[in-house]
Amino acid sequence: MDRSLDKILKEKLSDINLSEFNKIYYGSANCELNLKDATKCASEIHNFEVDGYSFKAAREELREPRIIRLGLIQHSIVLSTDKSINEQRLAIFDKVRKIIEVAASEGVRILCLQETWSMPFFLCTREKEAWSGFAESAKEGPSTRFLSEFAKKYEMVIISPILEIDENGVWWNTAVVINEKGEYLGKHRKNHLPSVGSFNETSYYSPGNTGHPIFQTKYAKIAVNICYGRHHALNWLMFGLNGAEIVFNPSATISEFGESFWGIEARNAAIANGFFTCSVNRVGTEMFTVNDKEITRSYYGSSYVTAPDGSRTPMLSRSKDGLLIMEIDLNLSRQVKDRWGFNMTSRLDVYVECLQNATENAI
Amino acid sequence: MDRSLDKILKEKLSDINLSEFNKIYYGSANCELNLKDATKCASEIHNFEVDGYSFKAAREELREPRIIRLGLIQHSIVLSTDKSINEQRLAIFDKVRKIIEVAASEGVRILCLQETWSMPFFLCTREKEAWSGFAESAKEGPSTRFLSEFAKKYEMVIISPILEIDENGVWWNTAVVINEKGEYLGKHRKNHLPSVGSFNETSYYSPGNTGHPIFQTKYAKIAVNICYGRHHALNWLMFGLNGAEIVFNPSATISEFGESFWGIEARNAAIANGFFTCSVNRVGTEMFTVNDKEITRSYYGSSYVTAPDGSRTPMLSRSKDGLLIMEIDLNLSRQVKDRWGFNMTSRLDVYVECLQNATENAI
Repeated sequence: MDRSLDKILKEKLSDINLSEFNKIYYGSANCELNLKDATKCASEIHNFEVDGYSFKAAREELREPRIIRLGLIQHSIVLSTDKSINEQRLAIFDKVRKIIEVAASEGVRILCLQETWSMPFFLCTREKEAWSGFAESAKEGPSTRFLSEFAKKYEMVIISPILEIDENGVWWNTAVVINEKGEYLGKHRKNHLPSVGSFNETSYYSPGNTGHPIFQTKYAKIAVNICYGRHHALNWLMFGLNGAEIVFNPSATISEFGESFWGIEARNAAIANGFFTCSVNRVGTEMFTVNDKEITRSYYGSSYVTAPDGSRTPMLSRSKDGLLIMEIDLNLSRQVKDRWGFNMTSRLDVYVECLQNATENAI
Repeated sequence: MDRSLDKILKEKLSDINLSEFNKIYYGSANCELNLKDATKCASEIHNFEVDGYSFKAAREELREPRIIRLGLIQHSIVLSTDKSINEQRLAIFDKVRKIIEVAASEGVRILCLQETWSMPFFLCTREKEAWSGFAESAKEGPSTRFLSEFAKKYEMVIISPILEIDENGVWWNTAVVINEKGEYLGKHRKNHLPSVGSFNETSYYSPGNTGHPIFQTKYAKIAVNICYGRHHALNWLMFGLNGAEIVFNPSATISEFGESFWGIEARNAAIANGFFTCSVNRVGTEMFTVNDKEITRSYYGSSYVTAPDGSRTPMLSRSKDGLLIMEIDLNLSRQVKDRWGFNMTSRLDVYVECLQNATENAI
């Protein structure tokens, strides 16, 4: 099944009451954006999918609408993993450049790439040395330099998840935020590292030490919850309590692990915390040879966005490169909080005590 | 749309690869249970839906399987809300009795009824006095007495969500747990009270003061998260940290508020915490007259169960009384935790500090 389940459903259900279906399944009608002809043309030439939707908010008396466009890019690697690191990286740059140009021409203001977007997700191999060339400086590495140009040229905030090596030579799984002037704004290091069966990332780097930072950009207050962090409700919660209006979840995750709840967790987080969530996952099959044994991992894409009221977009393809463009009104966040009362009724003080007791009892 | 979306999808998608669809949509294949002919017969005579499914777990070397059957009942009220309280309650007893008998004959060991199951959900009216007769003692009220008989007769644990009045005359939204001997085992009072738009329950009762109790029953360690509590990740988390293997979520919720995320939150909680969740919601339309103005509320049923691996059952009907029978192996809980590592990677100590700071900063 290469297309997203959502696309298949849309086709198969064309004769039922789609407005009622959409209300239950997506939470709202998913208004499609009118994209430019040039966008469609570019997507055909360069063989990536482009979808655009918008979430509406009510008009308010005291606040103007705060409408912006977000862009999510999912892509496969280009060259096989036995090519040189430099060749592999440049080939990805070349592919992603074309998608960014389209995002810019559609007015995208905040763009998010997938986890460790400029390299294969080699962390299944358990070999660190072979890949060390992919680790780069957050402030001045090739990925940051490459994206800064676009950020400046198009006044676009870009979230660039990379494999970081810091000044002490320590590796981290990091998302760099570049502001609309092309400057390094800050970074977040992945808070929770996967330990799923025999797959774990702790051979490469440690759990993040940057807390739950909010990046005050020109367009919105944003945060980044990297991949496996989406399984942790408290991680989402802290980004919310710290003031995030949008939380991005750049990921690299395979169907064998949890495709059925890919659509659940980030959506739940948007509902629980009253912010927008943007889920990005890579596509394609990556092959590695370790001790003459082949390891293959296939990523299922399916990038999507959820609004604070729980409405979500259809997902991008399961197998194809793609750009999801989303027009949102940030005012929706407060509107939902005021109406639903989840923040008001959260009794956080009670939970501070409960959690404290629980952690003490666990020793 | 009276039937569940799930039933419609099953019919419409019969020609696609259902095993791949099920994997993405439900998380697994949803094995259907073979129910007795007498069950089908009774369900036709008494006009309720019965569905049965099972979730499998792997065989283990050191532990025997711990397979039990759960039952969830969703139902409408029977008489109009202007009838006497006693008549209304007895009519509901009479309807529910027939469904319990079927559950018992199918070997259900833990049964959960919907929020305030033996009365209309009048809390939208803002009038307290008119309904005070529905408030009852947790230990000795008519609902507990009625269900105790069945619990004893069928060695069945029953969760009975009621409107409680305590010895000081204070009301609570409470779930009573009756053990398999028909004895009162304990109770839980709703931790988070809805404040959604102009609807709120605080005119009737206060947020619960019973914490996050786990009930050690003959069959499993269970907990109850009443209705609106499902919106709060920390509420689910504490039930998990306290040891729950199954958390029931008896509810009374209408389509206008959040039907699109009914399937998200309890499912997310099962995934995040590694326990089974059982979601129960009433059906039918209830009408009240307040100051000569009619208030109508329609509940959408759609009761379902989620396993710790995120697999869920199809939902019961949106409009019809129903019994969902679920066969589970409790061993799945630890199997999933061991494999996914969410507990191991949760960094709870970090969050105690974060939350403490957040609550202090909020003053």
